[in-house]
Amino acid sequence: MAGLGCCTVLVTGANRGIGLELVRQLAESKHPPSQIFAGCRDPEGPRAKALKELVQKHPKLITIIRLDTSDPASIKESSRVVGSKLANGSLDVLINNAGINGPNTLQETGMKEMMDLYITNVVGPMLIIKDFLPFLQKAATQPRSGARKGPMIINVSSVLASIEKCRETINIAVMYSYRASKAALNMLTRCMAVEFEKDGIMAPVAVVDSASGMLRVISSLTAKDSGTLLDWEGNSIPW
Amino acid sequence: MAGLGCCTVLVTGANRGIGLELVRQLAESKHPPSQIFAGCRDPEGPRAKALKELVQKHPKLITIIRLDTSDPASIKESSRVVGSKLANGSLDVLINNAGINGPNTLQETGMKEMMDLYITNVVGPMLIIKDFLPFLQKAATQPRSGARKGPMIINVSSVLASIEKCRETINIAVMYSYRASKAALNMLTRCMAVEFEKDGIMAPVAVVDSASGMLRVISSLTAKDSGTLLDWEGNSIPW
Repeated sequence: MAGLGCCTVLVTGANRGIGLELVRQLAESKHPPSQIFAGCRDPEGPRAKALKELVQKHPKLITIIRLDTSDPASIKESSRVVGSKLANGSLDVLINNAGINGPNTLQETGMKEMMDLYITNVVGPMLIIKDFLPFLQKAATQPRSGARKGPMIINVSSVLASIEKCRETINIAVMYSYRASKAALNMLTRCMAVEFEKDGIMAPVAVVDSASGMLRVISSLTAKDSGTLLDWEGNSIPW
Repeated sequence: MAGLGCCTVLVTGANRGIGLELVRQLAESKHPPSQIFAGCRDPEGPRAKALKELVQKHPKLITIIRLDTSDPASIKESSRVVGSKLANGSLDVLINNAGINGPNTLQETGMKEMMDLYITNVVGPMLIIKDFLPFLQKAATQPRSGARKGPMIINVSSVLASIEKCRETINIAVMYSYRASKAALNMLTRCMAVEFEKDGIMAPVAVVDSASGMLRVISSLTAKDSGTLLDWEGNSIPW
């Protein structure tokens, strides 16, 4: 299993699916990060059970952070908590993994579905990046080593987010609200990749099939990948 | 001035800017449409003055329709009103022109700005398309002539909506909330172009500098342009 070769990582939506698997594989990799922050909407709820069991195995490595990506106040508070726990104020990798799906057809898609997905899939990740930016900027000032490539923001995307590939992918799923949200997230990532270049922060968009796929892509990233949409093999996909 | 070579047209955001100019140029073109519906948020308010003056010059041609694109109930009601006035239930051209701008920098952009732009620039146009779709489908069943190319949905976009061109255009304006909303609208348009092919409805995205630029592009459209992002000269722009 590829490690991330970095020191501190935040994964949002870490209580299930790929998020949980990312935290598990990072914690159990040959070269684990020094700190893993696992964002989770409701750490006390039944849906956080598997994450809590994982933390019991790696209590010094993983810290659960209460983080509801649809709530600006929760995002702000989570950045305060993480900031207080970061060893030297540096966050090396932010993985915006939390996201939700919507209905499939246009008929089923109304204002509520559009707004819900936009809040969680676009506005939340944007606010998280804004609130955690000082820690990423701090990481950019740390000395680099072979394994430490400078800070990265990874926004998790989908092949359904490629406008260019819509004609090919519409047979997999229509999902207007999901596609629109991910296209918007792609736009934000692309702009941020340009804006944050001066800070030495990379911001690619990763399309993934699995946690190990994502870690493989992330561990192979270089500065040229910033602001690109990458598939699980690290190949660039058209917007 | 190019006309649209069609019979019935709806323009949203018709009380000012390009929307107002579109209605004016359509009404005064050599071959005007048979009916122009001018959508406007507040027909009684001071901001509708110029549109009302234009209607006084062309009272049989232009009908003002109350249409607040951020309000699903207003959209639904506008489709009922337009439907009751359409000569044979057919709408040939729907121009989703209404839209708003947002702040320029990431720092100025928060949840409220993101949501406001998404509602007006993305959700509104989507709901308008859904509610007016039966009239566009009806138009697709009408006989075609040289000037009448089948129904069209034109979603007005911007060069800032091109994710691919972000690096070039970020110096013009950053505008995260605006760019994200227009990228999402591009995605919807692209999907709809594929979905509505079976209905014979074209759905390109037009990037325009002016009303005459838009009419020039629209009047030159053919089926191959459906689902593409076009600049004011009708050239395709990458997503």
